[in-house]
Amino acid sequence: MKFNEIVEKLKQGHSGFVDFKIKNNPVILAAASLEKAKANDISFLDNNSPLNLRNLIKTSNASALLLPANNNYIAEIVKKISVDWILLKEPKIAFAETLEFLYPSEIESEGIHKSAVIGANVKIGLGVSIGANAYIGDNTEIGAGTILHAGVVIYKNVSIGAKNLIHANSVIHSGSKLGDECVVNANAVIGGEGFGFIPTPHGWKKMPQVGIVILKNKVEVGSGSTIDRPSVGETIIGEDTKIDNLVQIGHGVTTGKGCAMAAQVGIAGGAQIGDAVILAGQVGVSNKVKVGDRVIASSKTGIVNNIEAGKVVSGFPAIPNKLWLRCSANFKKLPEIAKAIRQLDHKKTR
Amino acid sequence: MKFNEIVEKLKQGHSGFVDFKIKNNPVILAAASLEKAKANDISFLDNNSPLNLRNLIKTSNASALLLPANNNYIAEIVKKISVDWILLKEPKIAFAETLEFLYPSEIESEGIHKSAVIGANVKIGLGVSIGANAYIGDNTEIGAGTILHAGVVIYKNVSIGAKNLIHANSVIHSGSKLGDECVVNANAVIGGEGFGFIPTPHGWKKMPQVGIVILKNKVEVGSGSTIDRPSVGETIIGEDTKIDNLVQIGHGVTTGKGCAMAAQVGIAGGAQIGDAVILAGQVGVSNKVKVGDRVIASSKTGIVNNIEAGKVVSGFPAIPNKLWLRCSANFKKLPEIAKAIRQLDHKKTR
Amino acid sequence: MKFNEIVEKLKQGHSGFVDFKIKNNPVILAAASLEKAKANDISFLDNNSPLNLRNLIKTSNASALLLPANNNYIAEIVKKISVDWILLKEPKIAFAETLEFLYPSEIESEGIHKSAVIGANVKIGLGVSIGANAYIGDNTEIGAGTILHAGVVIYKNVSIGAKNLIHANSVIHSGSKLGDECVVNANAVIGGEGFGFIPTPHGWKKMPQVGIVILKNKVEVGSGSTIDRPSVGETIIGEDTKIDNLVQIGHGVTTGKGCAMAAQVGIAGGAQIGDAVILAGQVGVSNKVKVGDRVIASSKTGIVNNIEAGKVVSGFPAIPNKLWLRCSANFKKLPEIAKAIRQLDHKKTR
Repeated sequence: MKFNEIVEKLKQGHSGFVDFKIKNNPVILAAASLEKAKANDISFLDNNSPLNLRNLIKTSNASALLLPANNNYIAEIVKKISVDWILLKEPKIAFAETLEFLYPSEIESEGIHKSAVIGANVKIGLGVSIGANAYIGDNTEIGAGTILHAGVVIYKNVSIGAKNLIHANSVIHSGSKLGDECVVNANAVIGGEGFGFIPTPHGWKKMPQVGIVILKNKVEVGSGSTIDRPSVGETIIGEDTKIDNLVQIGHGVTTGKGCAMAAQVGIAGGAQIGDAVILAGQVGVSNKVKVGDRVIASSKTGIVNNIEAGKVVSGFPAIPNKLWLRCSANFKKLPEIAKAIRQLDHKKTR
Repeated sequence: MKFNEIVEKLKQGHSGFVDFKIKNNPVILAAASLEKAKANDISFLDNNSPLNLRNLIKTSNASALLLPANNNYIAEIVKKISVDWILLKEPKIAFAETLEFLYPSEIESEGIHKSAVIGANVKIGLGVSIGANAYIGDNTEIGAGTILHAGVVIYKNVSIGAKNLIHANSVIHSGSKLGDECVVNANAVIGGEGFGFIPTPHGWKKMPQVGIVILKNKVEVGSGSTIDRPSVGETIIGEDTKIDNLVQIGHGVTTGKGCAMAAQVGIAGGAQIGDAVILAGQVGVSNKVKVGDRVIASSKTGIVNNIEAGKVVSGFPAIPNKLWLRCSANFKKLPEIAKAIRQLDHKKTR
Repeated sequence: MKFNEIVEKLKQGHSGFVDFKIKNNPVILAAASLEKAKANDISFLDNNSPLNLRNLIKTSNASALLLPANNNYIAEIVKKISVDWILLKEPKIAFAETLEFLYPSEIESEGIHKSAVIGANVKIGLGVSIGANAYIGDNTEIGAGTILHAGVVIYKNVSIGAKNLIHANSVIHSGSKLGDECVVNANAVIGGEGFGFIPTPHGWKKMPQVGIVILKNKVEVGSGSTIDRPSVGETIIGEDTKIDNLVQIGHGVTTGKGCAMAAQVGIAGGAQIGDAVILAGQVGVSNKVKVGDRVIASSKTGIVNNIEAGKVVSGFPAIPNKLWLRCSANFKKLPEIAKAIRQLDHKKTR
């Protein structure tokens, strides 16, 4: 693809096109980071990048660059460099759009593989693809354009909307309902039995888990992640919520819209997560806790009490992020603090 | 099911039936939480619920309620409400029993699917169900009434007892032995190779892992959890021990009876866990550590040393829970503590 | 196998053979730990074992022992015990070698199972074994001697070298490249989509993930672990790096040679891990952080900033291990420290 074609396409995009220079009009064959780009590659610099990254613009071997507009330092550099460039309000979005047309998805419906096993009374929409050795249980519904890869197991009575992408060997249990445009990555498990056991003098009594899991539209679930169904009612993942790999969502959890949960997050049963909540890697949320809208928790945070909307929290138990940063800095001083206290005691008792 | 039928059934159960009122004798169609229940639903309140939950009894739309006996506050409420109720010593167990007969399990043997691949010399008990595209290795034994779902892979020489439930796409490695009435959830891995490598000047030397994994009766293993086999001997999960999702059990670990391990717990190689131990979410246990009977570790605890029976521990490294609560409360004060110490130093040096 | 045969074999091995005693020349049928060994078992004691383990030599029922040379205490014991023994510089390596010849691997090529589904233009080397219900996508290459177990799913355009062992139900995504002698354990996912989403006023915009994952020679990946591909470029796992179960490796991570990552480690996107780095269980590494060669992080460490080569770190945020040990010891004293400060304040304000 020639660079001028990319210019035209990005003008139609959603990245805030501002300015451009075409001089060499190179053929763009691939995309790469500034450090690793070579001739015929396109690369980008994100807004608010630190100086060492901004300076990579001068040395990168990329043939074309997507750069932040409204940055004086970069505005000066682009006057001097010989490669072609585009200035945009959102260069990262421009890069995402460029990847979309440079690397068009190869995914295409391959129909229903002859080795797939389809149960009774299954409704399959137009253009659905079902991979080799997949299994679809009775009374399941699969919306138009949905792709199920090899080895996927769908239990009975599942409802899957349109344009979902279900990767290999993932498992979706009975009663689960997926909206449209969801992605379930490989080996994820949707709708497994919640962990509910009641102690009795004769051992654990299982609480039956007869609820279901609902994924609203545009939910994405990472590889190996698990989302459990509750004893009664629903576990609900809100629209456009994105879940990374190896995340555990307990029975009866509800999340709002547009959340992001990084890898290895664990949310215990019954927790209620608001809209646009961001949980970094390895965060834990205790059962039945309420986390308000737009809360951000940094990595390894343990949320054991309700958190108000808009707060940024860290640590275990979670406290305001700024306080935690100061506390952590002082944690390192504990040996000297303890020593000072000992000297004080010594003085007092002298 | 009419409410009076539920009354009769719970009288035969194990939840300590005390008293009841039948006035409307509604048809009960479903079970739900107090907050979400609607007409023709049954709901329950657990013992020791806080006041805000107890007050939900007055406003719930449920048509029938399972309530704690021996609670004066509730005894007063039930005089005034118009819905039918039952008072029980263990209302949560009553609710579990009610779920069992309101939602009878649909699981039934479907026989051996024609797409399943069965190795040589496999012994299959009466009523065993083997799902589509499952694979059973040579010399494996599967006890009566066991259900293997689609895509399960059993390696060679595995022994599986009676009435086990093995969910889709889980994997059980060679030599593993499962008792009766175990549940292995989807995508779990039983008997994978322990992580044993010896450093040498030429790189890592693998320690062969020729041991096996044993799950005693009534063990449950969560979705995506992994239980490794050791170099020699056995990894043993004790009877009635319940393991949640994404839990890692290292090679050579032994656990006692009746333990519960919440999601994302990790137990390193050779640790010895007693009976009735409870590990909350994201707890870690170091290798070869001994954890005594009835120990409880709160979430994210890191157990690096032996813990005596009956202790409740928290934090990393683990300390007594009550001490940890006080320490954590004071952690927040570290900036002011450090400031006080600085002022002190300043005074001294003046 | 008679004990004298083991002596001869270990003389040819790499464990630093020093001395031996053959008196009974027992038949060795199995290997076991010192505590659990019985007649006709061989067992070993590692270098630098504590006194209580060294004393097990006297009481073990093993018929033969592999013991550390150059240890006076053991040298005295072996004069007195009646069982046969070998003294070695590296008894643990000797035990690994002994396991190899006592328990020869049963793995053998079983050819391509007739239920496996093989795409178009797949190149399959000599002696490759493909298990039941496995799926191999188009244009994939599988080197000689590689074994794929039942239910494995390989997407399109994957390159797998020679002598790999790919366990059941694991998934390898398009474009991934595996070297030789790798092990991918059950339900692992190689090359899943990196977690890249850009916030916009209309919700998350997905950053296409068109990069690939490369596993160099002798990499091992644990059960249920996930290694993501990046938006552009490669995620690279260096030669001889060993990854335990349920580990998450984010998009664009690179690791050096000979690293070891214990269970439930999480490495965020773009982190750069040096050679011979050891990360203990549940460690987290933040995105884009650089971890120098030979760094060791103890369990649950959270590495949020670059770490210089050779450092041993602990805690969250990570600090030098020795400092952390002292800080942790003083953390327990926080209540009394806070009390001392309060008394001080009280005195001042009196």
